[in-house]
Amino acid sequence: MVELSPSRLHGSLSAPVLGSIGFLNEVMGRFPEAISFAPGAPHPETLPDPQMQHYTDRFLEHLGAKGFAPERARRMLFEYGPSRGIINDVVSEALWRDHRIGCAAEELVITVGAQEAMLLVLRALFASADDVLAVTNPCFVGITGAARLLDLDVVPVHETAQGIDLDGLARACRTARRDGRAIRALYVAPDFSNPGGGRMSLDCRHRLLELADQEDFLVLEDNAYGFTAGAGTELPALKALDTQRRVIHIGTFAKVAFPGARVGYVVADQQVLSEGGGTRPLAAELATLKTMVTVNTSPLPQAVIAGMLLEHGGSLVELSRHKAALYQRNLSTLTDALDRHLGGGAALPGIRWNRPEGGFFVRVHLPVRADARLLEVSAAKYGVLWTPMDQFYLDGAGDTQIRLSCSYLDPGRIEEGVRRLTAFLTKEIRA
Amino acid sequence: MVELSPSRLHGSLSAPVLGSIGFLNEVMGRFPEAISFAPGAPHPETLPDPQMQHYTDRFLEHLGAKGFAPERARRMLFEYGPSRGIINDVVSEALWRDHRIGCAAEELVITVGAQEAMLLVLRALFASADDVLAVTNPCFVGITGAARLLDLDVVPVHETAQGIDLDGLARACRTARRDGRAIRALYVAPDFSNPGGGRMSLDCRHRLLELADQEDFLVLEDNAYGFTAGAGTELPALKALDTQRRVIHIGTFAKVAFPGARVGYVVADQQVLSEGGGTRPLAAELATLKTMVTVNTSPLPQAVIAGMLLEHGGSLVELSRHKAALYQRNLSTLTDALDRHLGGGAALPGIRWNRPEGGFFVRVHLPVRADARLLEVSAAKYGVLWTPMDQFYLDGAGDTQIRLSCSYLDPGRIEEGVRRLTAFLTKEIRA
Repeated sequence: MVELSPSRLHGSLSAPVLGSIGFLNEVMGRFPEAISFAPGAPHPETLPDPQMQHYTDRFLEHLGAKGFAPERARRMLFEYGPSRGIINDVVSEALWRDHRIGCAAEELVITVGAQEAMLLVLRALFASADDVLAVTNPCFVGITGAARLLDLDVVPVHETAQGIDLDGLARACRTARRDGRAIRALYVAPDFSNPGGGRMSLDCRHRLLELADQEDFLVLEDNAYGFTAGAGTELPALKALDTQRRVIHIGTFAKVAFPGARVGYVVADQQVLSEGGGTRPLAAELATLKTMVTVNTSPLPQAVIAGMLLEHGGSLVELSRHKAALYQRNLSTLTDALDRHLGGGAALPGIRWNRPEGGFFVRVHLPVRADARLLEVSAAKYGVLWTPMDQFYLDGAGDTQIRLSCSYLDPGRIEEGVRRLTAFLTKEIRA
Repeated sequence: MVELSPSRLHGSLSAPVLGSIGFLNEVMGRFPEAISFAPGAPHPETLPDPQMQHYTDRFLEHLGAKGFAPERARRMLFEYGPSRGIINDVVSEALWRDHRIGCAAEELVITVGAQEAMLLVLRALFASADDVLAVTNPCFVGITGAARLLDLDVVPVHETAQGIDLDGLARACRTARRDGRAIRALYVAPDFSNPGGGRMSLDCRHRLLELADQEDFLVLEDNAYGFTAGAGTELPALKALDTQRRVIHIGTFAKVAFPGARVGYVVADQQVLSEGGGTRPLAAELATLKTMVTVNTSPLPQAVIAGMLLEHGGSLVELSRHKAALYQRNLSTLTDALDRHLGGGAALPGIRWNRPEGGFFVRVHLPVRADARLLEVSAAKYGVLWTPMDQFYLDGAGDTQIRLSCSYLDPGRIEEGVRRLTAFLTKEIRA
């Protein structure tokens, strides 16, 4: 009987981050009654009705208005389709309407969530073992996972209150150059990163783009949580500020619509020189790579997403307005509760937390190691779960931090969860 | 403005195979009136009705019968789900019912088509630069594309009338070993390969599994076209003969249901040793890798596919019965027409073709190079398109062969296409 040794399997399978997520799921399974601040899942109230036919019909209507015969439109739902997607026009118009990100449909690829977009972009850009990926630290595990799968070298750059440590990034570029290597791209989520929760200031955005130009790297902008900014407080996406085509913009409908769609997108308008002397957009190269990964994104959820957008005037902002308000409410419920229960400070020295202006996550710093053992105690004795932050750090830091997610809980549960967390911290933590 | 040099992009983007497919699409676009034997697309008659709600409802009913509360079942359609899939029980039962492939739901991963399954399996198994992938030659471009994306070395093994050149495969194993390397896995489509059209004999299947045991490689079995075998003529899948867990079985619903679902699956019951001394199935490792590629397969098309299966008694054979008959009819229409129009032989020396017993494809050998120039003549002057076969070969062979696909045409068009092809061959080809 075939038995496979882990040493003969690819290294990405032994990455600690995945062990942690597995452990977290396992703990959640054992304590189903615990209030969990762990998963960044959507609030159930934001999920659509299972009777979704009208969304598909709405997209078919759109195709009809564009001149597709009904039979041709019908086939588009069921046949293999173009790798770059079938709803690019709808998404491209929404990006312009809502974010002033201008891109032609050909400069856009519809992907199986943001995750596939990250994998495709990394695969396209990283051609040499001398190419290095810079990421903000702490960092979303999706990008570091994709980098591991492709055996890419990753260098962490500190996330700051302003966004990113630009001096540190410039140093990383110089260090790489000195070693005969190059920072090929930087991954950053400027609007409420997961897990950091930070938002990059406008000044930092401009300076990052200048540095990218000076040092000749590309910027991979992940915009999953931008929609949660309070109305009127939005900052322009890096891509909207990008006059040099330095930015590759990655988005997802997981949060503004629903995760099960598995529909994301990538704007890649960089020009690739072709042998004949012409150019074609990087998006076309990504679509080619996509034929080797998933061939194309299922047209069924693509149609549902386009239908949902069209029913909201073709606007991402309109589509997500209710959700944005709900997540803003949950976030202030969480930070208010932390203030109220833990705010005394004196009682719990060494405990502090950030106050993100959007997103799903709050970070709490503890005076002790936040490890599996501590989580076990928190779950078993106090009925409250959270995510240890060390898995989001590339440099071993963050081992005294925990991440609290407030996205899928109701205010009452958030309040009760913070009460339990306070009991746990008060009784178990000694600075 | 950023301009990217192709030399700084990943090598898989310059692979000739993709150039060829792009060229083929371009030619098809320029000659829309031509009869095209090029795409392996499904017949339009086999596509479902766009009113698909009842399939989803059927799956929700199934979840209800399994004890899921309606609200919980509803959420499964819209939330992130387990990476390994949500319809594994339905697929696993169908594989046993129809093919006597026994696997637990945990030994199965639902993927974004067979393509993602191939990528995941290759990524998991190929840990060292000394690992080599063997593939039948000619070979499906999906597996060689995935191998290129991962920078894997591939060695071709001749496809024969019996299936595969086992002596050649044994030699390849010895050669690899001599060079300090190892054939880690062999990719093969034993039932009507694309593009070869061959079917592996029962004897060859048994001997292949023996060789895999002797030489310690895994067999990746692609079963996309198995359902097209004439009723009663089916041979057991390699996986059904596999007593040693040597075979990883990859399937897709693209052909038995519809391509736009982008739902495939992989049976991976190999046991991976874990540090604690226990084991877990390779499928669990593939599911972990999937979190870095697409996170999970969209539950919407998963639900539709499961609903379609359940409406057909949970049987792949029942689901595909009508399609199998249609494709059998198309294939005999094509080979009969070739016999009738080209069968004289004397008139066209050097032209011969195979007679597959199933699948979508017939191979025609010409006495001249079947290249882009010849295809251009065929399209422009005779209104008939086909696929040059050289792109399916890894060793430069096959440059005098063309592939004819009969899947999506009606019999009248096949007949007329062969008439045009005959005119083209008669007038343009000199042996």
